[in-house]
Amino acid sequence: MTLTMRAVEVQDDQSLKLVDLPKPEAKGAEVLVKIHAFGVNRGDLLQRIGRYPSPPGASPLMGLEACGVVEAIGPEADRWKVGDKVCALLPGGGYAEYAVADAGSCLPLPEGCSFEQGAALTETMMTVWTNVFDVCALKPGETFMVHGGTSGIGVSAIQMAKQWGCKVLTTAGSEEKCIAAKTFGADRAINYKTEDFEAVVKEEGGVDVILDMVGGDYVQKNINCLNKLGRLVNIAYMQGPKTELMLMPFMLKRLTMTGSTLRARTPEEKRHVRDGVERDFWGMIAEDKINPVVYKVFPMVEIEAAHALMESSQHIGKIVIKTG
Amino acid sequence: MTLTMRAVEVQDDQSLKLVDLPKPEAKGAEVLVKIHAFGVNRGDLLQRIGRYPSPPGASPLMGLEACGVVEAIGPEADRWKVGDKVCALLPGGGYAEYAVADAGSCLPLPEGCSFEQGAALTETMMTVWTNVFDVCALKPGETFMVHGGTSGIGVSAIQMAKQWGCKVLTTAGSEEKCIAAKTFGADRAINYKTEDFEAVVKEEGGVDVILDMVGGDYVQKNINCLNKLGRLVNIAYMQGPKTELMLMPFMLKRLTMTGSTLRARTPEEKRHVRDGVERDFWGMIAEDKINPVVYKVFPMVEIEAAHALMESSQHIGKIVIKTG
Repeated sequence: MTLTMRAVEVQDDQSLKLVDLPKPEAKGAEVLVKIHAFGVNRGDLLQRIGRYPSPPGASPLMGLEACGVVEAIGPEADRWKVGDKVCALLPGGGYAEYAVADAGSCLPLPEGCSFEQGAALTETMMTVWTNVFDVCALKPGETFMVHGGTSGIGVSAIQMAKQWGCKVLTTAGSEEKCIAAKTFGADRAINYKTEDFEAVVKEEGGVDVILDMVGGDYVQKNINCLNKLGRLVNIAYMQGPKTELMLMPFMLKRLTMTGSTLRARTPEEKRHVRDGVERDFWGMIAEDKINPVVYKVFPMVEIEAAHALMESSQHIGKIVIKTG
Repeated sequence: MTLTMRAVEVQDDQSLKLVDLPKPEAKGAEVLVKIHAFGVNRGDLLQRIGRYPSPPGASPLMGLEACGVVEAIGPEADRWKVGDKVCALLPGGGYAEYAVADAGSCLPLPEGCSFEQGAALTETMMTVWTNVFDVCALKPGETFMVHGGTSGIGVSAIQMAKQWGCKVLTTAGSEEKCIAAKTFGADRAINYKTEDFEAVVKEEGGVDVILDMVGGDYVQKNINCLNKLGRLVNIAYMQGPKTELMLMPFMLKRLTMTGSTLRARTPEEKRHVRDGVERDFWGMIAEDKINPVVYKVFPMVEIEAAHALMESSQHIGKIVIKTG
């Protein structure tokens, strides 16, 4: 048993460095996971520049999701045993060879999935479930739109909404990405560089639920796209959170606008999300109805290149790091 | 049986005039109500200046609520019989001696209530129920705020939320109105002319649900006042619907913002609201736990004076017109 692990640390100049750190211990309701692969998320890039710190009590390392094998069990952890292969949502700490995860934030690695594929599922499926299916209560037969259809969130949201029996619209920034979004199940992929998404959505009869991470001037356009009783949820404001809005459609169409982050939630809240994902969608992965979309796997030493790729937005699907 | 009725009509110069019009007939699921009294609502003032027309199919007259006696029953109307005393929500047409109401939009006149008092209850209680208790799901033990605590909406919202077991905050524009709001049950009434409501609400520990009709710069202040998982609902934008917002609190506090109008809803939707009000609150009126607050009753010939009073905002509670 080693007492240290390799981990990615942000240096004072914001560069990334592999260092040796003490292995964490599973306390309370936590399990210790030996990480085989972890997913890269946009939040990691924000954390790297100091704008999205880990919540109190969590590992200060980056890393919101990991896939691996349970190596130790905290005294109050339920369900898991040593040797179980799990996909874990983490409040931080995934950029390492080991991390602790709350037992209620873990899902079993689906049959037929590699660790790299398992690292590409948890954060996006839990984010989509809580926002789209729980809070916005997307119903079969409704029309759904997700912006950024080839992002990690996008590929999960498209597949989940399609399996739910919805018409799915999405936006993406190139013809290649639009074609990819359609292969994931989008009924209509709008190239936002050549088409006005608001006009296209209106031609398509409007939408009932929108999952957005763009913000800025997308907010008003989203509001204008929504049908009566439509719902808009933001999980980021990449174009900024400040915007001028004409609110009258909220009254006239009885709209709802909301937003959320997953990271800061309590373990009980995350357990609710885990349970929802598992009940509604997790079994569809082994059935090949929902597929992990891994764009590229990097070894941990190439973490800087992985971040540069995400920054470039050229990827389609998830960027994954393998530790071994 | 007369075939005509007295009614208030808006003239081309926006003045109001009593005229003789044909009595409406109860068709389908409607009942014909002989109106003894009707309530004045702010929407009437907007309709008068052409900014809030009746929905298609409804009477073009003003008047969103009336109280009287059922005089005829449409072939598909359930529940009511000739002679029943009812409080009716109307899509229009209340400014008259007779109006048709959907059977599902009527409630029984509570025991102990005069027609004038019955005319002061329906529109506000249904508006408050659908927005605060149904859509925003205000829970006992939560903190609630309504702006304009001495408006018709305000006096209903304060009483209903207090009976629901909530801490109730409100705003009003004078010391006299603040004192009145407290007699209706507000735990804290904020004089917005001398106090900053955002600062006071934060001192009070924040709020979970806000019912607002002000809009404008109140929207951001409302957002700032809300606790985690807080909900804001707008039923008007008296300061205007256009505003610049900083949306980040939506994500960080997982807020919800919504809005609605009641008038344009389908009869089925209004029946759902009627049923909710009846189940949760209507019995409290006969029990003296919720009281109609009638500020002044005018005869129909003085309708211009009634509108002028509402425009002045000097009233506390409802302005009611008697037809007889």
